[in-house]
Formats: sequence, C-alpha cells, structure tokens
Amino acid sequence: MSTSSSIPSRLDVPKRLLLGPGPSEVDSAVLSALSQPTLGHLDPVFLRVMDECRQMLRHVFGTKNDLTIPMSGTGSAGMETLMVNLLEPGDRALIVVNGVFGGRMAESARRAGAAVHELRIPWGEVVSVKRLREALTQMGGRAELIALVHAETSTGALQPLEGLRAVADEAGALLALDTVTSLSGCPVDLDRFGVDAAYSGSQKCLSCPPGLAPVSLSDRALSRLRARKSPVQSWYLDLTLIAQYWGNERAYHHTAPTNMVVALHEALRICCEEGLEARFERHRRAGKALQAGLVAMGLKLPVPDAIRLPQLTVVSVPEGVDAASVQRAMLQEHGIEIGGGLGDLKGRAWRIGMMGSGATLANITRCLAAMSGALESEGFMPCGDGAAAAAAAWSA
Amino acid sequence: MSTSSSIPSRLDVPKRLLLGPGPSEVDSAVLSALSQPTLGHLDPVFLRVMDECRQMLRHVFGTKNDLTIPMSGTGSAGMETLMVNLLEPGDRALIVVNGVFGGRMAESARRAGAAVHELRIPWGEVVSVKRLREALTQMGGRAELIALVHAETSTGALQPLEGLRAVADEAGALLALDTVTSLSGCPVDLDRFGVDAAYSGSQKCLSCPPGLAPVSLSDRALSRLRARKSPVQSWYLDLTLIAQYWGNERAYHHTAPTNMVVALHEALRICCEEGLEARFERHRRAGKALQAGLVAMGLKLPVPDAIRLPQLTVVSVPEGVDAASVQRAMLQEHGIEIGGGLGDLKGRAWRIGMMGSGATLANITRCLAAMSGALESEGFMPCGDGAAAAAAAWSA
Repeated sequence: MSTSSSIPSRLDVPKRLLLGPGPSEVDSAVLSALSQPTLGHLDPVFLRVMDECRQMLRHVFGTKNDLTIPMSGTGSAGMETLMVNLLEPGDRALIVVNGVFGGRMAESARRAGAAVHELRIPWGEVVSVKRLREALTQMGGRAELIALVHAETSTGALQPLEGLRAVADEAGALLALDTVTSLSGCPVDLDRFGVDAAYSGSQKCLSCPPGLAPVSLSDRALSRLRARKSPVQSWYLDLTLIAQYWGNERAYHHTAPTNMVVALHEALRICCEEGLEARFERHRRAGKALQAGLVAMGLKLPVPDAIRLPQLTVVSVPEGVDAASVQRAMLQEHGIEIGGGLGDLKGRAWRIGMMGSGATLANITRCLAAMSGALESEGFMPCGDGAAAAAAAWSA
Repeated sequence: MSTSSSIPSRLDVPKRLLLGPGPSEVDSAVLSALSQPTLGHLDPVFLRVMDECRQMLRHVFGTKNDLTIPMSGTGSAGMETLMVNLLEPGDRALIVVNGVFGGRMAESARRAGAAVHELRIPWGEVVSVKRLREALTQMGGRAELIALVHAETSTGALQPLEGLRAVADEAGALLALDTVTSLSGCPVDLDRFGVDAAYSGSQKCLSCPPGLAPVSLSDRALSRLRARKSPVQSWYLDLTLIAQYWGNERAYHHTAPTNMVVALHEALRICCEEGLEARFERHRRAGKALQAGLVAMGLKLPVPDAIRLPQLTVVSVPEGVDAASVQRAMLQEHGIEIGGGLGDLKGRAWRIGMMGSGATLANITRCLAAMSGALESEGFMPCGDGAAAAAAAWSA
C-alpha cells in the first residue's frame, strides 16, 4: 500500500439469493445481531448469551447433553472436534462413507491415529443396520467409534437413525453423527436415537453466517473423553479445556468469536419461535415443491424419493449441458447461487438448497424460472412448467 | 422450548468501551461490513475479497509471502496452524516461554509430536540473542523450529527481533513468531527480520471482531511443509489443502466464514488508509499517555520502559485492592472493559489495551477517570491527576 491508489475500495456486497449447499439465506435480524457492538468474551452479558445458546442448541439437537456448545470454527472444525476428542491412537473406528463428508470423517479419524475401517456404500445410498452389523463383524465385533453422516451434503441422501444404537452397543462403541445439513431442517433427536456425539454448522438450516460449529456430547462420550490416556492432539479443539470456559468455571481458553455467537443466538431464537415441527414441515414442503418442479421440467433426481433430503436436492446435469455455465448464468443474470457437484459428482450434478429461511415457495419459483432460462440457453428445453408444478406440490 | 415463554428474548447488546487485552474497539464501518448480505465461499465477489485481504495482510505483516491468509478460527487456531504444519513427530522445537502465550506454543508443539525445549525467562522480560544461542547450544545446536512471542499479551513485553534470524540459521531452524498483539500496533516486518512463519488474531490492533487468525508462511516454511513425511495431523488446519482454496485452484476445503472475512477486509482497509507508520505512532503515543497517567496516579508498571508495549499495558494491583472489584465497577458503572491478570499474574495485575481504533486520548481520559473512582472506592487514593498527565504526554 505504498500509494493510496493501491488500497482496495470499500466493498459493496451484492445481495444474492443463496440456494446452494450453504451458506444459506440469513435473516436480516441475524445480520443485525451480528453487527451489534462487540462484547468481550468474559463480559457478563456475553456469558448469558453463551448459556442461552447452549439451552437453545440442546432443544434443536433434541438432547439434554450438558456439553452442547458452538465450537469457534466452521462445520469441519466440528467434525475434527469429535474425532480428536473421542479417538486415541490405535482406537478402532467404523466409518460409513457414502459421499464426500463420510470420506472426510475417515480421513480426520486416521489423522487422529485411529485404525479406520471404511464401510463404502455407493454414493446417494444409505446404510442398513444389517450392512453396518456385517461390517462390524468383519472388524472382529468391537470398535471404539461408529460414525455416519445424517444428511450427506454431497449426495442429498438422508441416513435413517433407527437401530444404529443397538449396533453401537454391541460394539461397545460411541455413536457419532454429522448433522451439518440436517440440524433444524429435519428431526435429529440425539437422545431418542442414542447418538453420543454430533456436530453441525451454523450456515445450513440454522440460517446463520458460516463460522460456528455446534457440537453435542453425551455423558458416555464425556466419560470416554475424561478417561483418555493421551492428551487431545489439538489444543484449539480440546474439549477438556473448552468445557471449562463454557461451563461454570469460565476459564479463559481462547477468545470466543463473540459477534458470531450473538448472531447464532438470534438464529436459534428464530428457530425456536417458529417451532421445530413447523420448521421441519416447511423444509419438507419446500423440498417436495422444488423437486416436483425440477421433475416437471424433465430433470432427473438421482436419489430415491424415500431417502431424498428436503433441504438439499441433487439434480443430474442433462447430457450436453455445461453445469458451470448454468450456475454462472443463474448467479450473474439472476443473482441466485446454486451449488455444483462435489467429488465424484463434479460437473455431473447441481445441488440446490432449501435451507432455513430460504425455504419458501417464492424462492423456489424464482430459482426454477432462472434455471429454466439458463437451461434453454444451453440447448435443453424444459418439458413442463416447473413453477406451476412446484406451486401445486407446495399446496398439496 | 416447549412453551414460548422459555425462548430467550432478543438481545439488546450494550455498547462497551473495550480497553482490555482484546477484543478491541471495532469501527462502525467494520460492523457494517460484517452485516452485509452473506456471500457464498465460491462467489466471484468473495474470491476478489479474499485476494484483496491477502494483499493487505501482506502489507500489514511486512512481507511478500504468497501464503498470507486468514485462518477460519481465532488467534489460537493460528498458533496451532503453525505448529501442526511446520512440525513433524520427533522434530526439535526451541520455544521461548516468558508468559502465558509462549507456554501455549510449547504445549501445542508437544501435542504436534515435537521434542520441545522450553527456554524459560522471567515473566515480563524478553530473551537476548546470547541467551537464545546458549539454549540452542544446550540442545546440541540444531532445531527444526525456534518460536517466540513478539508482544506477550499476558505481560505487556515486546520482544526485539534483531539477530534472531542468525540464530535460526545456525540451528537450521524455521523462525516462528506470535504476532497476535503486535500486528498493526507496532512494526512487525516479517521479511526484514527473516521470520518464516507468523500468526495473529483479528481482534487486537486490527480492530475487527474475534474469529479470524491471519497467518503468513515464507517460501522456506512452505518448502518444509511440502517436504513433510507425515500428513498434517489436523485436517481443518492443513495448509497444504487450504492453500488450494486461497490460491488459484479455488478448491473447496471448508466453508469460509464469509461475513467475517468481509469485515476483516474493511478493518484492513482502514489500517491501510491510516498508513502503518501513522498507526504505529498513534499506538506509541496512546501507550505513553496511558502509562504516564497511570504512573501519575501512583500505580506501578512492572515491565521496564525499554520493552514495554504501547498497545497493552500491565498494571500492578496495589496492596489491599481487590482487582476484580475494580474491573467490575469500571464495567458496570462506566461501561469500560479492562482485563485482569493471566496465569501467574491472576489477581495481581490489570491489563489495559490501547489497540486499533480504541487508541485515542479521549478513551484514555475516560478510562483513567473511571479507574480513579473505582480505586478510591477500594481505599486507594490516586496521588495525582492521571488524565492531566496523560494529556500532557499525548501532546509531548
């Protein structure tokens, strides 16, 4: 910056309609909370904010777990938090890989020193209790951790949770769950399904900006943590230390991202005011409507209806269409962000999010209209009126 | 949240004057940038924001290092980023410990598997080149990493950087520096002093809310990183992956905290517009003025003048005064946050920050007046007019 001319100019950020895999649409009340005056991380007002966030997060996770807090990082930091705290070198981890994020859990567990058994399932499918039990048997019947992704953001598939606890009990394992895309978009209910540890991200169905990773640990997971023989390999994510800041001791560990936590407080409040059941129903309806519209336009949805997520829909790119061109046209001409395919689906799929406050019929209509135009420019003629089909499905 | 009455009410955050060890005062322009509409992490507008942040961070760090980026976590995540990327199991690390944050680096390096040699110096002092060389000799003359804290936030001492590079060269070591409290408050100049790796936090002299950790790695550090025999133990902080997102590949790693990065962009812009030299001079003047005022009131500053930081002043708690009562009175009656002592200084010191946009004479006057009243309530009668002494020193 030797001359003033080289200093970048002040940003004027355009308003996008965020219908990708996250970040999702953020309410103006949440943005307004984000820009409240900064608080110190030990200010009594902030300590109350922390307590209320924990209380609301417990409600959203469906748990009574005391250690339910937002970690100071994005969803991936939440993933790593679970792996480094719950695994010790040599521990056996059974991890279901049916998309990008299962693969990441496995990688993260390996880096924590675990002996990882990957149960690979075709992308877009989910694992049955029978298949999980078979994999466990192949491992000798015992494991310290079994981990799965609840809502695979790379494929749009929803993993059923019934019966998983029984397998974990047979193995003597903790049951860990990636709820990044599911939390507050569909039922999670940690306590009901006996999940010991879960993580999520602020920027999906919670409709808060990215930067925080809610996590929750059961008493069983806490006991495992307290009985560790080796220190947690990450100092930054060490829950034995962080729990002392979020707990009654208020012992300084790191400077919490206070503005982000205040924003999360408002996002959680909005969730609670809407009511979880009503929020799930709105997501369900939005998913059905979007998917009906896409199908009416002649597009293919690779995930079977029975396990298809409402909040994140994967759409196959039709033969001859350039996936990136369609995304670019939607963003630049209509201000709408949708996501591209990830991993094996790169260039072969789009991902459309109906998450949090973005899950409305008006957004679906706007998205389908823009997509229709972008597809036509690419030589693909939609065979029916997506918006009309979506509206009909929304009201059904 | 079974009944609406149990949902916490919307927050009305009080405006504090943040004169602790951080977070510091945040300009309204930065808060306004923070609450701009959320952008996707692959939006072309956001990619430009990232490039401009890197450019401005290089200027502030005094470096041409290509890999100069904000990590998605707080300052401690920046610390851990350096340790887990630059150290492999069995590496020898020489770490200077003269306060809380040197101790943390040592702990983090141990958890990364390094053989750590702690060079312990009394709190409030700094290390000489001679003493550092002696410690190196005790280790056998070789080390993979030498790490120091530039501005110790727990003691208020400023480590001189002259001559450190030569010792690192003799050892064949990378030279790493904690610049959490120094960056943009006093000269850092990584390239001039031959520093290979540095980390900082957004919430100190940069006057941005907490949540981001700027880091910078030299080509030498990058070569070491690329030559690693083992994977980086943290997936979330793995710079070999993250560099591909911040570089031209734009490969998705994790969802960047986009609102926070947009806020950092504005905070860096304000820095650059003020000019680094002018900013250092303002901090220097504010430190001198505050310290003159404190001394005029009869308070003791334990750190010698020659190595005393301007941006963070440690003040000894007078005999018979309850440190926490004074802090509480200042916060509750005057809305001013100052910090308490950390580690060995707990209950025995206050820490007063003059950081970023908070470093003004008006704030000093307000702080000293409030402190004067709080001390009197505790039975300590200030022996002189702090505000007048501060004003005189400010103009000197």
